Amino acid sequence: MTVQQKMKTLTHFINGVEVAGTSGRFSEVYNPSTGEVIAQAPLATKEEVKQAIQLAKAAFPGWKKTAIGKRVEVLHHFRQLLIEKQDELIALICEESGKTREDAKGEIVRGIESVDMAISAPQMLKGEYSVNVGGNINAFSAKSPLGVVATIAPFNFPVMVPLAITSMAVAVGNAVILKPSERVPISALFISKLWKEAGLPDGIWTVVNGDKEAVNELLENKEIQAISFVGSTPVAEYIYQTGTKHNKRVAAFGGGKNFMIVMPDANLEQTANAFLGAAYGAASQRCMAISGALVVGKDTEQRFTDILKEKIAQLKIGPYTDPEVDFGPVITQQSKDVIIRYIDGAIAEGANLVIDGRNPKICETSKGFYLGPTLLNNVTPDMTIFKEEVFGPARIVVGVQTLQEAIDVINNHELGNGVTMFTNSGAAARKFQEEIEVGMVGVNVPIPIPVGYHNFGGWKRSKFGEGHMFGPDQARFFTKAKTISERWPDETENTTSTFAFPSNNDVKS
Amino acid sequence: MTVQQKMKTLTHFINGVEVAGTSGRFSEVYNPSTGEVIAQAPLATKEEVKQAIQLAKAAFPGWKKTAIGKRVEVLHHFRQLLIEKQDELIALICEESGKTREDAKGEIVRGIESVDMAISAPQMLKGEYSVNVGGNINAFSAKSPLGVVATIAPFNFPVMVPLAITSMAVAVGNAVILKPSERVPISALFISKLWKEAGLPDGIWTVVNGDKEAVNELLENKEIQAISFVGSTPVAEYIYQTGTKHNKRVAAFGGGKNFMIVMPDANLEQTANAFLGAAYGAASQRCMAISGALVVGKDTEQRFTDILKEKIAQLKIGPYTDPEVDFGPVITQQSKDVIIRYIDGAIAEGANLVIDGRNPKICETSKGFYLGPTLLNNVTPDMTIFKEEVFGPARIVVGVQTLQEAIDVINNHELGNGVTMFTNSGAAARKFQEEIEVGMVGVNVPIPIPVGYHNFGGWKRSKFGEGHMFGPDQARFFTKAKTISERWPDETENTTSTFAFPSNNDVKS
Amino acid sequence: MTVQQKMKTLTHFINGVEVAGTSGRFSEVYNPSTGEVIAQAPLATKEEVKQAIQLAKAAFPGWKKTAIGKRVEVLHHFRQLLIEKQDELIALICEESGKTREDAKGEIVRGIESVDMAISAPQMLKGEYSVNVGGNINAFSAKSPLGVVATIAPFNFPVMVPLAITSMAVAVGNAVILKPSERVPISALFISKLWKEAGLPDGIWTVVNGDKEAVNELLENKEIQAISFVGSTPVAEYIYQTGTKHNKRVAAFGGGKNFMIVMPDANLEQTANAFLGAAYGAASQRCMAISGALVVGKDTEQRFTDILKEKIAQLKIGPYTDPEVDFGPVITQQSKDVIIRYIDGAIAEGANLVIDGRNPKICETSKGFYLGPTLLNNVTPDMTIFKEEVFGPARIVVGVQTLQEAIDVINNHELGNGVTMFTNSGAAARKFQEEIEVGMVGVNVPIPIPVGYHNFGGWKRSKFGEGHMFGPDQARFFTKAKTISERWPDETENTTSTFAFPSNNDVKS
Amino acid sequence: MTVQQKMKTLTHFINGVEVAGTSGRFSEVYNPSTGEVIAQAPLATKEEVKQAIQLAKAAFPGWKKTAIGKRVEVLHHFRQLLIEKQDELIALICEESGKTREDAKGEIVRGIESVDMAISAPQMLKGEYSVNVGGNINAFSAKSPLGVVATIAPFNFPVMVPLAITSMAVAVGNAVILKPSERVPISALFISKLWKEAGLPDGIWTVVNGDKEAVNELLENKEIQAISFVGSTPVAEYIYQTGTKHNKRVAAFGGGKNFMIVMPDANLEQTANAFLGAAYGAASQRCMAISGALVVGKDTEQRFTDILKEKIAQLKIGPYTDPEVDFGPVITQQSKDVIIRYIDGAIAEGANLVIDGRNPKICETSKGFYLGPTLLNNVTPDMTIFKEEVFGPARIVVGVQTLQEAIDVINNHELGNGVTMFTNSGAAARKFQEEIEVGMVGVNVPIPIPVGYHNFGGWKRSKFGEGHMFGPDQARFFTKAKTISERWPDETENTTSTFAFPSNNDVKS
Repeated sequence: MTVQQKMKTLTHFINGVEVAGTSGRFSEVYNPSTGEVIAQAPLATKEEVKQAIQLAKAAFPGWKKTAIGKRVEVLHHFRQLLIEKQDELIALICEESGKTREDAKGEIVRGIESVDMAISAPQMLKGEYSVNVGGNINAFSAKSPLGVVATIAPFNFPVMVPLAITSMAVAVGNAVILKPSERVPISALFISKLWKEAGLPDGIWTVVNGDKEAVNELLENKEIQAISFVGSTPVAEYIYQTGTKHNKRVAAFGGGKNFMIVMPDANLEQTANAFLGAAYGAASQRCMAISGALVVGKDTEQRFTDILKEKIAQLKIGPYTDPEVDFGPVITQQSKDVIIRYIDGAIAEGANLVIDGRNPKICETSKGFYLGPTLLNNVTPDMTIFKEEVFGPARIVVGVQTLQEAIDVINNHELGNGVTMFTNSGAAARKFQEEIEVGMVGVNVPIPIPVGYHNFGGWKRSKFGEGHMFGPDQARFFTKAKTISERWPDETENTTSTFAFPSNNDVKS
Repeated sequence: MTVQQKMKTLTHFINGVEVAGTSGRFSEVYNPSTGEVIAQAPLATKEEVKQAIQLAKAAFPGWKKTAIGKRVEVLHHFRQLLIEKQDELIALICEESGKTREDAKGEIVRGIESVDMAISAPQMLKGEYSVNVGGNINAFSAKSPLGVVATIAPFNFPVMVPLAITSMAVAVGNAVILKPSERVPISALFISKLWKEAGLPDGIWTVVNGDKEAVNELLENKEIQAISFVGSTPVAEYIYQTGTKHNKRVAAFGGGKNFMIVMPDANLEQTANAFLGAAYGAASQRCMAISGALVVGKDTEQRFTDILKEKIAQLKIGPYTDPEVDFGPVITQQSKDVIIRYIDGAIAEGANLVIDGRNPKICETSKGFYLGPTLLNNVTPDMTIFKEEVFGPARIVVGVQTLQEAIDVINNHELGNGVTMFTNSGAAARKFQEEIEVGMVGVNVPIPIPVGYHNFGGWKRSKFGEGHMFGPDQARFFTKAKTISERWPDETENTTSTFAFPSNNDVKS
Repeated sequence: MTVQQKMKTLTHFINGVEVAGTSGRFSEVYNPSTGEVIAQAPLATKEEVKQAIQLAKAAFPGWKKTAIGKRVEVLHHFRQLLIEKQDELIALICEESGKTREDAKGEIVRGIESVDMAISAPQMLKGEYSVNVGGNINAFSAKSPLGVVATIAPFNFPVMVPLAITSMAVAVGNAVILKPSERVPISALFISKLWKEAGLPDGIWTVVNGDKEAVNELLENKEIQAISFVGSTPVAEYIYQTGTKHNKRVAAFGGGKNFMIVMPDANLEQTANAFLGAAYGAASQRCMAISGALVVGKDTEQRFTDILKEKIAQLKIGPYTDPEVDFGPVITQQSKDVIIRYIDGAIAEGANLVIDGRNPKICETSKGFYLGPTLLNNVTPDMTIFKEEVFGPARIVVGVQTLQEAIDVINNHELGNGVTMFTNSGAAARKFQEEIEVGMVGVNVPIPIPVGYHNFGGWKRSKFGEGHMFGPDQARFFTKAKTISERWPDETENTTSTFAFPSNNDVKS
Repeated sequence: MTVQQKMKTLTHFINGVEVAGTSGRFSEVYNPSTGEVIAQAPLATKEEVKQAIQLAKAAFPGWKKTAIGKRVEVLHHFRQLLIEKQDELIALICEESGKTREDAKGEIVRGIESVDMAISAPQMLKGEYSVNVGGNINAFSAKSPLGVVATIAPFNFPVMVPLAITSMAVAVGNAVILKPSERVPISALFISKLWKEAGLPDGIWTVVNGDKEAVNELLENKEIQAISFVGSTPVAEYIYQTGTKHNKRVAAFGGGKNFMIVMPDANLEQTANAFLGAAYGAASQRCMAISGALVVGKDTEQRFTDILKEKIAQLKIGPYTDPEVDFGPVITQQSKDVIIRYIDGAIAEGANLVIDGRNPKICETSKGFYLGPTLLNNVTPDMTIFKEEVFGPARIVVGVQTLQEAIDVINNHELGNGVTMFTNSGAAARKFQEEIEVGMVGVNVPIPIPVGYHNFGGWKRSKFGEGHMFGPDQARFFTKAKTISERWPDETENTTSTFAFPSNNDVKS
């Protein structure tokens, strides 16, 4: 079988049906584990995006008026389908992203957490009600869906991120347009069919495949009320600035440089195990991956590096078809090249290469985009590999003298997505939690990603906009509040005009 | 005594002291009731703004670390001082804004509502705490102040708006920089002294007077984390787009075209009384002023217009020193000219002038910027006077056939700040509340401004950004959330590395 | 086939298995539609109840420690099973309760609403977290399950009430012991098996069948931490007083006398349709059934009575096997006798019998416990039929002069479960909502039962105890709060003893 | 001056005025620091209590209808008066309770925390509002005050507890009747005048002095809707059982046996300082006083006891007029006798007397009810002094082997009010927080009393009833919820009767 035979032409998913692209432009979808092209995704024109938006807009009023209980019933059904079809979904994720089956399964389960949060929409949508705020007026508030909202997803979680940034949007009554990464469009199209099967009305869930042309239409189109984005920091910034320039509400989640602070009192064996999975899992292609260790104390640094060295030597990389592998390839050859340049650059800047993963053995037999686990130490905060997010398995060890120095080093970094600390000391943990300028914080937790019913979001240049992604704040991002002041006077009462500004208080001087 | 003798040179208020301007540029402050210049306000240079920001930034960490109970104690004291000094404050407001004493008093009382909301900061700042979200991890969240935040206030509420957009910001631990309107800087400087007397540390409350140069520095300066603004829609849009271009969090409140729907079953006498105060109070210079009546039914329209005509003829305008006047002048001669142009234009477009206030009697004896109450009917949605916010006492009557038409007309307007309806019908009120695309809605309430412990904010082009101004959402706007996942393992436990994405659920297929 | 052949001996459900009764005492379970005995339920001894409690207590710690996500996963599965098995469940409900299939289906759907509410337990269980409340102390709270809790259910909703009063209790981590009504034990045993199939650990869900002996053991046993009850007011009062005498937390929901106020401006045709279903549905055996109409104005009263008379004449009663019937029999012959005595008594006290349902036609051919729809007018508040809850299809019309009189008559009644009003007037509705001393209020709604994510509960003698049943408050009833004040001092700080009462505020004199 | 000359006859405070008692029965009020009688408090008859309740009931509707903003304005004013008059109040507290000035000041500040919480009533009273829960029904809830509520306060906080258990009750709209301890009625009468001066309407705040006769009337009287109580466990149990027997809502807070767990890794110097103030402050007459140390490890126990011994020797007791004293007398001679009996009994049961405070030096010169700080070690959980609350300065040291043993010992105690732990270990703190069966928990905090905006309340026999005292839950305790389902149909719609149970969901099988 040749590549050509296997390759499939994908579609968009518009108004409840798969729709072929009309632009004649396509993006190739790879199986990163084999290096083969497995499909081509159409790249939408501005016109196609406009039409999809119009259809979504037409579907919105009906969905908005659907009672919340009925909307949630669709989510229950969708949840059930995700569980029933998870093996198929795992296969698709693995094929187009290269991650291991266990990792794909974990991503689905996390995605379901977002659906669960969305199922609690009846709670999340409640407004506030006050009786007689003065003058027999009752005041109350209600949350309304925004209309058509767009969401732009990254390649590294083909299912979890789309679920995370759309489930609540759908539940509270919006029509959602998802532009998945052109690297991983297949999973997104698959879940489109599950939404339909679950009973979601046509037009409420749309997938448009595309590149910058489609994105720009979403950012500029007047009918799009809100944009949520997950991806790299430079693109997140672009999305935020461009979306808000068109007066939209925007939540744009960027990259992370997530350190694990290792305290001298930590159990180094446990900490190293935590580091390995959190740092190299999914070939480090997670915005919440641990980027490096900040080890407090010279001696601890040496011992921790030694333990890591020994353990990393035993890691296995390869295709998802092998259940023994710890992680798979990176997403593309270009991505692999970029990571190798970071490693080369770090060495040039004076870092020491503890473990070199640039030419992994598996590349001798496979054309997949593999990189072995790489560890550098003697890294300092002025090096590029410290300052920038590296989206692949090149991780660093940085030595510091004190906890205060560790905190300062992190607080001076421009990113502030996640951070974790391993220690036994309550006082160290308290100081760390309080002073660290990072949005998601762990203590003795490998990856400090919050559970789905708490908010997800970084600080500094890791997130642009007020909103959050998972969690209770999401309902707020995808709705607008209306406040009503209601009075029912006796028809016979005598009134006069009041020209002063109205207030119900009676403040004594 | 000449104008020159009376005129006072104002200052900024930086780091707890009054600081003279250094730019040599000034803005003249008028007493609109007399047309005299009463003071000159310095216009800050970019450099002066930068310095003020640096001092605020230096003060921030200490205030942030102050326990919330102690911060709130300052607000209690400030509240007490506002009450004790309200007569002085009323005098200042009246002098620089032209509003009546009763109106000034109402604005102070409303401002205190915002202080009260801020006093509840210990409740508003609470995060969420979950025990054992899986793997013995506890997950919890905390809200942190943002740092230095800027707030840009309009002329029409010299005290209320500054209190509304800064009290909670201060309470939750930020350092605030207020740029008041250059028309009304005196009140802002006065409350600065109350903050200081209340015990607020130097640097936490700053007033810089200025024009676009100062505003642009606030919008661009990296140290400013958030911008809140109240003013006209075009400026609100500029603030939103420029602030977000610099990656800031922005809430920008613009203008309104707030209609009163008059249903055929309404008590027209009561409704007309409500209309008068809500439409002409403060010379209509309120973003929540009623801009016009949308009267349902030809006959009702005629009767309502007749009643209005009779009642308007009895209104009295003049200076705040006369306790009998219903409202005073508009803020400047330029503003007066603009309003007159709107009236002239409406007539040219075919509107009928029911009452003409363009040349009020008082102008024969006073140089104040007076305009009499003006009423136009036969106004249609395509006229400029319908489409744009008019910030002065030119109000309109628009006839419609049905409630549905009234709703459609409003929903098609680009502004969506406030709206109200007078009726006895529960069904009409329900339909209206549900379908109207406006953020603040009243039923049988003259001005649908929510009470201070509910959210304030319009829809469409009346508000840019996710946040709200008054009310519980404000605490959220002025803080960022940190989510912590904490685990305290037994030191002796055996662990392995987990490369799959972590989840605590156990979803059965 | 004889009754004996059909009759089945039921069990308890203890520690995950069906357990035969040991007392030798049984209660007969009837099919009310045929009058036949279909099963016998064992009546537990105190000793059997004690053992069930011990097994529940033993199971509790493991369930409490199970992460909330995993507990909720069981509820998702349980929900799915309820949907899959609903036809079986409908058949059981119909058989043992006599209600129609549609009615049984409605009860299941409502029961699922309670499961849905319970699925939101991760939100409901969140405590509050405050940083630095003073002295660097963080204060936070957590909700813990209570332990073993008992719930005593009525016959009229064999599935809905058990789900309503146990789902959240289970979700937040308690072990639940249900004593169903001895009239309808079969459905409760059926759902026990669904819990088990859903993965609920043995011991967390227990059914003990029994009578007062079992109830008293539950009320007195030290290991039972909380009691929830739904039933008649006298028993609710006994449960509250006895449970609290043993220091338990108790929520006891009693009966209702739920009036429909009919205003002169109401659409009488619509109102009468609403009345019929709400008053006679399920043979009026609902604590939220409409007991009677309070009609404002003599003329309206007459017209409304005439419409009702005509419509009632067309109602059809009979067994659930006939899909055409509007409602079925009452639960027992004793119940039928009681209702007839109420009707007879009302006539003796001067009421007028508009429609007589005491000898319905169907009784000529069936031994089922049927009563036809009965309507009395000329009823006054001093009559027994006005003062007491009648649990069967004898409904009344009461005339009043004004809305105020209607409100007063209701407020003077000792029960305060539900009430509704039909009107077009916003002012009438507002006055009614505000002044009525009743816990669940409707406006133009036939049965004012709140949706499952709002609280359910009456006032006055319709509910004893602080708690609620459905809705968000339930999580609170089934948990206790722990408040933690945590500080992590620097080990080297110098301290002194503080003998004064600690406070973090700094109040200025 | 003789005692007779100084002695004052006190009154009740009913309907806004001081009212002399009519029973002829009085209770003597002592100055515990001198042993002299300073006043006599009238003991109300049942009849007097009934009349007070009637007057409160008459005042209730007007207060309930007062807009929340105006009610809160009274609380602001009351707060201001408490601050202005705090020196007078401190003098009264010291005189009638014997506590030091600093301690009295601390109690007032804490009391103001409760007023602050009550000032946030507009937030706390908000109900929930849901749009279109199905069938175009809007569902919402509102909280109503209960009516007349009674509150029974202990002697040990003459001001803080009355403020804590009444401020929110007043704020949310109830009429409150306070029965202060007959030991300390003077402070309660003083704050009554402040309420009046603050503008509280007559009848909303009532003080009746009395003994069991008055208490029983409050417990039995039908017009009393809720009882809150703070005192000893046996009386709390009586109050709970008797109040609930009369169908009231009751929150009854009892005693505590609050241990400080001292871990081997704790800084013993810091811990001992914390222990001293928390254990002996206010002569140990606090329900949150530390009753004893549970020291983990033999060696730590010995060292901790040695440090305590040395430090206790330096404590100074005496009258509040001496600013140097660490604590004053106990409340009465009877109380002193009881405490001495506990010490004697402990020695008889085998405890070792480390420091003997039974005959403090000051008793040679003063008739005040003084007891010196007493410390016993070798105490075991089977001794009476371990099992019972001792309301005076006899404290114990108990040795345990492990943290687990410490937790078990505490969990087996019948009381569960407060507990604290001193340690540096995050893991120890986590295990402790999670497993301890106590309502208020501290970590490295001397007295684990939560800040006023968190809930206060113990577990097990330290609290009876669902409610809390301080904090956000209090608003719930003092209100009842009404849930409203509102629909406004089109008058022309055609309807049919629905006999099945209504539900808005649409669950698919």
